[in-house]
This record gives sequence, structure tokens and C-alpha cells, in this order.
Amino acid sequence: MMTLNTAIEKLNTLEETQRAYGHAMGVLNLDGATAAPKRSIVGRSKTMGVLSGITYQLMVNDETAEVLATILENAAEADPKVVRRAELLKESLDDMTRIPMEEFVEYQTLISQADAVWHEAKEKSDYAMFAPYLEKIIHFNRRFAGYKNADKPAYDVLLDDYEKGASMASLDPFFALLREKLTPVILEVAKRPAPDASFLRQSFPIHQQRVFSDRVMAMMGMDRERCAIGETEHPFTDGFNKWDVRITTHYHENDLASSLYSVIHEGGHALYEMGGADELQFTCLAGGATMGLHESQSRFYENLIGRSLPFCKALLPVAREIFPAQLEGVTPEMLYAAVNASKPSLIRTESDELTYAHHIMIRYEMEKLMMAGDVKVDELPALWNKMYKDYLGVDVPDDRRGILQDTHWSGGMIGYFPSYALGSAYGVQMLSAMEKDIDVWAAAEKGDLTPITAWLGEKIHRHGSFLKPNVLLEQAMGQPFDPNYYVDYLVKKFSKLYNL
Amino acid sequence: MMTLNTAIEKLNTLEETQRAYGHAMGVLNLDGATAAPKRSIVGRSKTMGVLSGITYQLMVNDETAEVLATILENAAEADPKVVRRAELLKESLDDMTRIPMEEFVEYQTLISQADAVWHEAKEKSDYAMFAPYLEKIIHFNRRFAGYKNADKPAYDVLLDDYEKGASMASLDPFFALLREKLTPVILEVAKRPAPDASFLRQSFPIHQQRVFSDRVMAMMGMDRERCAIGETEHPFTDGFNKWDVRITTHYHENDLASSLYSVIHEGGHALYEMGGADELQFTCLAGGATMGLHESQSRFYENLIGRSLPFCKALLPVAREIFPAQLEGVTPEMLYAAVNASKPSLIRTESDELTYAHHIMIRYEMEKLMMAGDVKVDELPALWNKMYKDYLGVDVPDDRRGILQDTHWSGGMIGYFPSYALGSAYGVQMLSAMEKDIDVWAAAEKGDLTPITAWLGEKIHRHGSFLKPNVLLEQAMGQPFDPNYYVDYLVKKFSKLYNL
Repeated sequence: MMTLNTAIEKLNTLEETQRAYGHAMGVLNLDGATAAPKRSIVGRSKTMGVLSGITYQLMVNDETAEVLATILENAAEADPKVVRRAELLKESLDDMTRIPMEEFVEYQTLISQADAVWHEAKEKSDYAMFAPYLEKIIHFNRRFAGYKNADKPAYDVLLDDYEKGASMASLDPFFALLREKLTPVILEVAKRPAPDASFLRQSFPIHQQRVFSDRVMAMMGMDRERCAIGETEHPFTDGFNKWDVRITTHYHENDLASSLYSVIHEGGHALYEMGGADELQFTCLAGGATMGLHESQSRFYENLIGRSLPFCKALLPVAREIFPAQLEGVTPEMLYAAVNASKPSLIRTESDELTYAHHIMIRYEMEKLMMAGDVKVDELPALWNKMYKDYLGVDVPDDRRGILQDTHWSGGMIGYFPSYALGSAYGVQMLSAMEKDIDVWAAAEKGDLTPITAWLGEKIHRHGSFLKPNVLLEQAMGQPFDPNYYVDYLVKKFSKLYNL
Repeated sequence: MMTLNTAIEKLNTLEETQRAYGHAMGVLNLDGATAAPKRSIVGRSKTMGVLSGITYQLMVNDETAEVLATILENAAEADPKVVRRAELLKESLDDMTRIPMEEFVEYQTLISQADAVWHEAKEKSDYAMFAPYLEKIIHFNRRFAGYKNADKPAYDVLLDDYEKGASMASLDPFFALLREKLTPVILEVAKRPAPDASFLRQSFPIHQQRVFSDRVMAMMGMDRERCAIGETEHPFTDGFNKWDVRITTHYHENDLASSLYSVIHEGGHALYEMGGADELQFTCLAGGATMGLHESQSRFYENLIGRSLPFCKALLPVAREIFPAQLEGVTPEMLYAAVNASKPSLIRTESDELTYAHHIMIRYEMEKLMMAGDVKVDELPALWNKMYKDYLGVDVPDDRRGILQDTHWSGGMIGYFPSYALGSAYGVQMLSAMEKDIDVWAAAEKGDLTPITAWLGEKIHRHGSFLKPNVLLEQAMGQPFDPNYYVDYLVKKFSKLYNL
């Protein structure tokens, strides 16, 4: 029989070791995406294979099971943080052990192949190349969902994986509301003349855009001794601990807004990672609580603040210092209109705030059918194209700009997309609560977002994954989740912008 | 009793695991020096602590000892590469186990503290701050040398660590020859008018210097799919395997030559790492054989080729494409004279080819006294300053530009410096052999160094650490080592440059 104290000591050692491997693998991934030469993949895949095998063994063994059981059985006597750590680790362990080892390894191999195939298939716009992999990925995800919980529909199991508590029962009405209320606005906006955004499409030399990124991160109040920026094909954030967070961006010489809003978006993720309490670091309680909560932060900074008129007023003089010739004669109102140009389009990651959720709901509807087994894999592109026509009124010219555009499915992530829309909606409701406490728009117009980050830090960031996600959410929103905040915000913002 | 086959299988697994940890720790270090934010040190030191503890245990255990013994006892029946791997690992293991674990840990802690203290001491030019750490480092190095081989002088043990076969008996006459033959030339050159190097000291914007680095690496024939370049305070090279090698440089806006020759120097190290045979990768036989051999390659490209007139002829048009205004009117002969400007100076890393070895011999003489216990730690700065006056005729104004300038001693590396001078000398003798086989100067003047790399690849690079260093050296030089080649080359080159 293990004593509680021994179990806690062993838990500490286990997590310290896990963090070390997680950190090493995270840096290997980051290095692979930012600095490493192309063929480094040979060695990196070997190293990742060895290290992930070791981390699996670290979790899946009799001693770890006993450590977690001892703590959970003596929960009443232990520090609640220790109990929560044991709880979360137990969930991971259960997920890992329910899936037979051989199937897990087979799936990992499939995923790494599928990712390479998807890149090539996307480049060639050749869905047939990718289809057999997608079919297997769907098959594995259905099986794994069954192992985890055979009593629930497979898609509900996956949704809950990415966003604790999410299910088709909660998401169907959410997306129905968005579709009902936003579609008329989207269609009406599409008929109006587009604002002039041509001044954002001049030549903005990349070495100057790098300077601009530093200035924007300073406006966000990001501590650069704890957060660095790199460059990758697709922007992302990784936080190893609160003293070491990385964001990446992608610079396009002829598009100033693209990297700008990537930096603000990833900056939002980074502030979340940097805001966790010291005492949670190097445990599984550091970092964000759910994917939706993480997106609520990134999309908060990107859209609610970054694409607001007050922030555009602060942003323009900074941008003009670096790009005086290109931004000559531009007013804050012109910048605000340009960065909020809305139009139904093909590519999710380039879509505007108003149409964004429609891209997500298409993927949600498709995933529902995929996981229910109600659609054949070779029928998916036609279905995708039909939905883009029905939901957004656009014609998809090829699969590269259609079903092959996102990396998620090739990476095995089915059920992830709804987090983006949920996060957007959470953020608006948090903003509403925040406006009661602090002068959000004065801070935005001053170009110093620290009061905003302090509010979010208090309500969300500092808690890491210690609080249950629903508790955390209600604490930040001051009331239960209500998607009408999101819908009302979008309708109001875009009605005014487009004089509807 | 373990069978040979089992032992070989276990050796393969051991090395695969070791490489994975080595790779991860290497990337963590690289990331720390290039991309990571300042305070990431908190998490990185934790992770490095955990991973180095695990790698120690991986080596120091009964099974590893049995694996190595089984292979070495059955050497006659095993593949010579397997035997050589076991031999090199046995050497490491013996080194690790001869030092008591507690002393090893204490020393590691000392080194990491000493490095931080040295940085600050150097900045403040405060030797007294660093002296107690240096004293302990000397003490530990003498103890450890005694554990390794009590029958030899401590300094001989250390010299052999960095350069197999090196000893005071071989280095005393080597440095005596250099001092005798080169000192008159150095003093004579110092009297002549300095060539005009002012055109290298204009403003060269860093984003354009980055483009220049890419062009220089292309001239060297470096496969960029296997080698990336980063930026650090002090340039270095790290090779994880032949498909993943990194070099770093440091750009100074007002000094074009500084980064240029760092890139060529580190490029030489990188070509060595990239040239190892496929079959040696992911074993301890990949990578360079000794520090001196590694320096022979880097200094070969940097000085023998990079600072030659033919290569200056190839380099100038490339530089002028990127910096047309700054290099207007500059001729290859002017460039050649400027990059070979020679003058006794204070800082080793900024010294020229002719005076470089004198900086090394000062450190060699000091290390001899330190390891013999013939000098007190607080007497070292005065001794350093006296030697700079005696050997190079320069007055050391402060310890920052004197005894505190190098990072080696604070990193525990006593006995390393001579490798730099030996490597320089090896390179010249290799060049002499190479000139008999290929048209070196036609390749240099064309700005395509691939025939040179092919020759070095065949003689040295592809062998990794499989051949014994002395065998490898003689194979490349075609005869035993003779430092007169080095001396004659320097005397001839600088006599002609300065019309002596």
C-alpha cells in the first residue's frame, strides 16, 4: 500500500519528467517548423519516435496507476491542486489505455503519413490521393471513440475531447442560431460596395514588418523576456511554461493585415499561456483549460479589440511610423473599414469575422455525417462544395481551395473545428462582462492593452486548468453561456459598418 | 552470459536512445541561443537537468558495461564499426565512472554558475569576481585528470581529451617553432603601413548581410536542405546528423568581414558534419574525430581558401551585387589585402591569420602553469598581461580585453585551445597534399568549392570517428605531421602581402 505522501512525491517526479519530455518534443517541433533544414525530418522523426515511446511507458505502467489511485482515493486529505492534477492525468491515462497499443501505434504512423500525403494532395488539388487516408482516419476515430465511451455517439465523444461538455445536442442549436441570424446580414453585406483595402496591399518589406510585429506585441503588453516570435508557414503558439512562450507568424510582402492579425491572434493565445499562476507551472494544470477557451482569448484580441475602431486609432500612427509612404492619407476609419471588409469567400483562415462561423458550421455538419457513417468518403468533396454554395453562396473551383484547405483532418483532429466558433462566442460574452468593470475602449484607443489582459488574467489566465472549464467560463462571463451576445454583436457591428 | 548478437542489438538500442536525447538537448541549447526568450532559462535548465540525469543512467549501469565488454571480448568476430563504437563508448563510460557521481554533479553545478559569473565579470572587467570559480575549476580539472590517469601530468591528460595523442612533449616544440619563425614576421609586418580596410567598415544593413550569407554558403556548395543558419552572440556549429546541421553567425552592421568569415569558418565545420558516411549516422561514429581535426576544416575554408586572392576574386562580384554602393571601385587585390590586414592585437577571435597562433600559445603556457599548480589564481591576470607584452608586444588595458575574454575556462575547458593552432597547421599540410590532386585555385577563383569539399570528404569527412585520428590525419596529409608547412605558408603569404 502506497502512502499519500509517497504518491504525491511520485506524482511530482512523474510530472517533472513528463514536462521535460514535453518541453523537448515541443522545442523539436518548433525548431522543425521555424529553423531546421528540410531534410532534418529524417533525424527528428527518429528522435520523436524514441521520446514518445518513452513518454508512453512513463504513463502506462502499474506504478503510475497506483499513484493516481492513491491520490484520488485520499482526495479529501490532499491539496485540491494535487487532486486536480491526478484527475486530469487519470483521464489521459484512461484514454491511453483504452486504446490497444498496436492500434495506437498504427494510428500514429497513419497520421504522420497522412499529413505528408495531404500536403502533396493539396498542392496538386488531388482529393483522390488523400481519400484513402481520410477514410482510415475516420475509421480509427470512430473506433477510438467507441473504446472511450460506447454509450455515446462517436462524434459526441470527440467533441467532448476538444471542448469539455460540448455535444451535438448543444452545438446544433448554437449553429442553427448563427445560421438563422447571420445569413441575412452576410448576404446583405455582400451586395454593398466593398471598402477600399488597396492601401493594405502595397509592398511592405518583410524586415520592416518584423519591426511592426515587435511594436504590436509591445502594444499588447507582452513581456518579450518571456515570449519570442518566429516565422512559419502557418502561424501557431506553443507555451512550454509561463516564462517561455512562442508565437509564429507568416509575412506576405503585399499584405500588411495578414501577419498583423496573426500576431494579435497568436498574441492572445500567448498571453493566456503567460498568465498562469506560478504554482501551476511544470504541472498539467499550467496552460489553457480547453481549446474553446484558448480560442476565446486569441479571437478576443484579434477581432473584438484588434478589429475595433479604437484600436485602429492606436495602431495607425505606429504603422505609419514604419510605413510612412504606404499609409499616407489613411485615416483610422479607413483602416477600420478595410480590416473589416466582409464577403463570403472560400478559405476559412482568410475569412472575415462575420462569415467565419459559417465556415466552421460547414465543417461541423460534415464531421457529423462522417462520424455517423452517413456519407462515403468519395462523396465528401461534392458535399463540401454544395454546402459552400448553400451556406455562403460561393462556388468552389477546386479541392485545393475546398475540402483540402485545412490541416485538421489529416492530423486526425475531427471534432476540433467547433471550438473556433464557440471561442468566438465566449469572447463576446466576456467582453460584455469586462465592459462593466473596466474602460475597455479607452485602453484600446490608448494602444495599451494591459488593463484588458489584467481582467482576463484574473478571471481566466491565472487559473490554468485547475478550475473546471464550465466554472471558469461562467466566472468570466458572469452568467451561463448565451450565444445571442455573439450574434447581436456581429449584427450590430456589420450593420453599422455597411449601413444596413 | 550475453551473446554477441544480443550485445549488438542492445548497443543499437542504446545508441539510438542516446542520439535521441543528444538531439533533443542539442536543439534545446540551439533554441536557447537563437530563438528562446531570455527567461526561458528557468524551464530549460529544469529540462536539461532531467534529461542529463537520464542519459547518465543510460550509460552508467551494469547492462551497458556488459554489452560493451561482450563486444570488445568478441571483437574478432564483430563488424569493425561495431567494435569501434563499443571502444569509444567504453572510453566515455570509463571517464564517467572514474569520477565519483557527487563530484561530477558538483562540478556541473559549478560550471553553470561559473558561466553566468564569467559573463558578468567580463562585462564589469572584474577578475576578482571570477577568480574563486576559476580556482575551483582548476582544482576539479586536476582531480579529474588524476582519476583518469594518475601516471601522467594532469595537463597531458586534458590535452589528450581534446586532441587524441597531444601532450606537452609534442606541443612544446610545436609552439617553440611557431614563436621562433613567426615572431620576426609579425614584428616586421607591424611596422609596415596598414592596408585600407575602411570600405569593409561602412554600413551594411543586416537584412542584406543575411542575403550575402546565403550566397556565400551557396559558393561553398552547402546543401541548404541539410544545413540552416541562425544568429547568436558567438557563432558556432552543431550537427545532429548529416541531414541536420546548423551554423550560426553574428552580424555587425558596420563590419562586413566579421560575419562573412564566421559563416565560412562555421561552414567548414558544417561540411565536415554533413560529409559523414550514411552508415555512421545515429551512432557515436558520426561527426568529427577530434577538435583539432574539426578546426582544421573550419580554418581551412576560412583562411586558406576564404582569405586567398583567388577566392576574393570570386567573392567580390557577389558582394558587389548586394552592396553596389559600398563596394564601388574595390578590386579583388584590395579586398585580399583588407581581409588579411595583420597587426598584433588584444582579442583572439578578432585576430588575423598570422598572429592567431600567438594568442593560442599564451593560453597554452598559462594552462601548463595552472595545471602544474605553479601559479596562484590571483597572479594569472598579471601573467596574462606580461605574456601579451612579451609575445605580441601589446599592452592589455583591462581584464575584459585580457584574461576574461574567452569563454573556455568558465566552461571548464582547459586544454582545448591548442586544438585551434594544431587544426590550422594540419590544414596547411592537407592543402599541400590536395594541390597535388586537384586544381584548388581554379575552384576557388570560380567560386565553387565543391571539388575541394569532395577531396576533404574522401580523405576525412566520410570517415567520421571510425578511423583513429592519427590514421585519418596521415591519410589526408600524405605524410606525418610537420608544422613547417604551416610556418612556411604564413611566412610566404605575409612576406608577399607586406613586401618584406
